[in-house]
Amino acid sequence: MSDVVVPPGWEVVDGRLHRDLEFPDFADAFAFMTRVAFAAEKLDHHPDWSNSWNRVTIDIVSHAAGGITDRCVALAAEVNAILGER
Amino acid sequence: MSDVVVPPGWEVVDGRLHRDLEFPDFADAFAFMTRVAFAAEKLDHHPDWSNSWNRVTIDIVSHAAGGITDRCVALAAEVNAILGER
Amino acid sequence: MSDVVVPPGWEVVDGRLHRDLEFPDFADAFAFMTRVAFAAEKLDHHPDWSNSWNRVTIDIVSHAAGGITDRCVALAAEVNAILGER
Amino acid sequence: MSDVVVPPGWEVVDGRLHRDLEFPDFADAFAFMTRVAFAAEKLDHHPDWSNSWNRVTIDIVSHAAGGITDRCVALAAEVNAILGER
Repeated sequence: MSDVVVPPGWEVVDGRLHRDLEFPDFADAFAFMTRVAFAAEKLDHHPDWSNSWNRVTIDIVSHAAGGITDRCVALAAEVNAILGER
Repeated sequence: MSDVVVPPGWEVVDGRLHRDLEFPDFADAFAFMTRVAFAAEKLDHHPDWSNSWNRVTIDIVSHAAGGITDRCVALAAEVNAILGER
Repeated sequence: MSDVVVPPGWEVVDGRLHRDLEFPDFADAFAFMTRVAFAAEKLDHHPDWSNSWNRVTIDIVSHAAGGITDRCVALAAEVNAILGER
Repeated sequence: MSDVVVPPGWEVVDGRLHRDLEFPDFADAFAFMTRVAFAAEKLDHHPDWSNSWNRVTIDIVSHAAGGITDRCVALAAEVNAILGER
């Protein structure tokens, strides 16, 4: 984990990659989640996330590895790409 | 709130309607969330919810009213209907 | 219908508002459709549409009115907004 | 293609696996499409499909192979499973 490069916009909180996001409304937030859901399925690595109307909170960790792995970083980078921050 | 009839499968936790659900896998969990998302938009009342792979946790409260309202109960009932428990 | 202002990017084909769209891949196309689906539910006016991998074809007409109505134009304008062409 | 076993509920139309489906309403139809979309991504094989409110029409063919392949049958079988017809 010492080698993990935390993608821009993310921070490490409680040993997990963490990011809080805000959208104009619920529909925008959920459409974003749908796009991320496809990326997660493709990577076979899924976020722990929550949504409250226009807000989405994402935590990414490997439960199996007990820490942040390359696949966690890949998923976080995909989220950034979906946000247009590639 | 004393008049609120808690729908089957739900309990009141910290002043909110609460339910934990488990699905076969992530795709099933997220497809369920999509169906609930449409119901939430239609009711214009949205859950506070989280997802971790095949698990979905839902809390419903009216932030404006500061408690559980009829619309909270209506959304919880819709969730039950989507689960085939109508 | 003679008063209908066709939104930019759309044309009238067979008496319906018509637009063909192309996305980078299937996930982007379907996430777009999800966002439009929410708008359609909110407007209570739904498109006739098809998808083939990265392509989405949309036709909008009022089956009840037998032509293009203000709600058709509103849905087409929403699609443009979702595409960032507001 | 002569060896293809057409799954129950499907027929071969114009050299493609074809099925017409009807749901209670748009939200149910689109939630079904979301579930199928995940299956399609996982199989990396995508349908040609259209939706009009509560109706979904699905055609499955391999454009690359120019016919119905095992992956087409696998996707059709997945659709049946999602419909609870496994």
